[in-house]
Amino acid sequence: MTAASLSPIPYTLSPVVLLVRPQLGENIGAAARAMSNFGLTELRLAAPREAWPNPKALKMAPNAEPILQAAQCFPDFTSAMADIQHAYAATARPRDMHKRVLTPEAAARQMSEIRYQMSKETSLTFDIRHLTSATPRVALVFGPERTGLENEEITLCDTIVTIPTAENSSLNLAQSVVVLGYEWWKASAECRVLSTEGKDTLNSALSTQHSPAPKEDWLGLFDQLEGYLDAADYFRTPDKKPLMWQNLKTMLLRGEWNAQEVRTFRGMLRGMWEQRRHS
Amino acid sequence: MTAASLSPIPYTLSPVVLLVRPQLGENIGAAARAMSNFGLTELRLAAPREAWPNPKALKMAPNAEPILQAAQCFPDFTSAMADIQHAYAATARPRDMHKRVLTPEAAARQMSEIRYQMSKETSLTFDIRHLTSATPRVALVFGPERTGLENEEITLCDTIVTIPTAENSSLNLAQSVVVLGYEWWKASAECRVLSTEGKDTLNSALSTQHSPAPKEDWLGLFDQLEGYLDAADYFRTPDKKPLMWQNLKTMLLRGEWNAQEVRTFRGMLRGMWEQRRHS
Repeated sequence: MTAASLSPIPYTLSPVVLLVRPQLGENIGAAARAMSNFGLTELRLAAPREAWPNPKALKMAPNAEPILQAAQCFPDFTSAMADIQHAYAATARPRDMHKRVLTPEAAARQMSEIRYQMSKETSLTFDIRHLTSATPRVALVFGPERTGLENEEITLCDTIVTIPTAENSSLNLAQSVVVLGYEWWKASAECRVLSTEGKDTLNSALSTQHSPAPKEDWLGLFDQLEGYLDAADYFRTPDKKPLMWQNLKTMLLRGEWNAQEVRTFRGMLRGMWEQRRHS
Repeated sequence: MTAASLSPIPYTLSPVVLLVRPQLGENIGAAARAMSNFGLTELRLAAPREAWPNPKALKMAPNAEPILQAAQCFPDFTSAMADIQHAYAATARPRDMHKRVLTPEAAARQMSEIRYQMSKETSLTFDIRHLTSATPRVALVFGPERTGLENEEITLCDTIVTIPTAENSSLNLAQSVVVLGYEWWKASAECRVLSTEGKDTLNSALSTQHSPAPKEDWLGLFDQLEGYLDAADYFRTPDKKPLMWQNLKTMLLRGEWNAQEVRTFRGMLRGMWEQRRHS
């Protein structure tokens, strides 16, 4: 079975599943198995605790072998996110962060509308050959089994997805992948049916005219800005810095700038900083 | 944590989760954990392969201890189904059986409308104290890990629930419970919001005026009828009997008779049979 035969949705059009610091190979395998059930094919691992490739993952998910073999392993979270343009953080805990929080259903609908929108702009019929290069890279981001995503990681994501639960809100890793994968599959099936009709509910910020900058552009911006702010002693006391810095990044990210806008802002910052040094 | 604290939905109003011939304690535990995430509290096991109680189940699901401790173990499928009035069989494989097939979403909506309907008939506000005795017993039925439910078992269920998947349609046991539990939780939350407004989409066959007969009544009917038909050599050749008998039972069940109607039909059969012997 090849990766292509797993799903009618082409490889590059489904969201990436990114597991951040996963602890157990078995859970990676169970997540891959859930992916294969719901047409998700691209798996990324950021700093898994156990060495990769991991035979325990394959043992857990013989059907998902193509997904596991094609999985990419990154040394850390930011490198795994470099080319991602819109990231959904799967997390149950509400945090004091001004980010959009969506249900799995709403997030899935948004993801498949991005995909659909691409097809509408290139052709009136759903022709996948026109889509691959310009399709925004979308990721579903899952934290480690025990602790979940850290605030720092959630900050870099654009949207929080919270699975509605009863009082026991702790889902295991693969079960969270099941729920989000299941909603993705439902929503994308719906969009396949609708693909030749009009449908204009896409958030305009996510259309091709406004393709969001990949995260590596944002990380570059943040590095630059943090350097300036540290040098300027903006944060005053070290204990206040983490929250101030998180809020600042969240605020900037919410604008969903494209690559050109990020460059413009960086140029503006640099201009200000150089000016300051010379004055 | 007591069972009652797991969910705002009272114990007797959520569907029963019935695992038929589950093979591994770990999977029973993972299923119970998923139940606790989504407000399902009543677990039944029919002929589990390993002895029950099973410490491996608890190890897998420390949060779900109240569910596991309250779980009831039955010697076989039919005894576990005895008091069930409407059963949903979770199965992926389409079979030549004239049964309603619903998506998890549609099944969940139907289940929570049964619950809601009860509240409307007893009181204009959603007062759970009036509901417990008359609430129809509903079950979600899951087959063993490797093989799934047998045709004989599906036949006794009223509705098939099929989880939409990509080409790999094999979900593990707990993951199927996750999807159905998740949809149940979504639908029941919706019904909580709607509980004081009018909402009349309930299938009339499922209302209190027409409370479906419990499965033990049907099993009694089937035993009686099979005895007559065997004695009458109705099935002719033994190899043709299984399918003929399955189709006949499916056909009868589709009427969703109440207990009185089952008794009436049994009386009719008996009358016919006695008449035949005396003539």
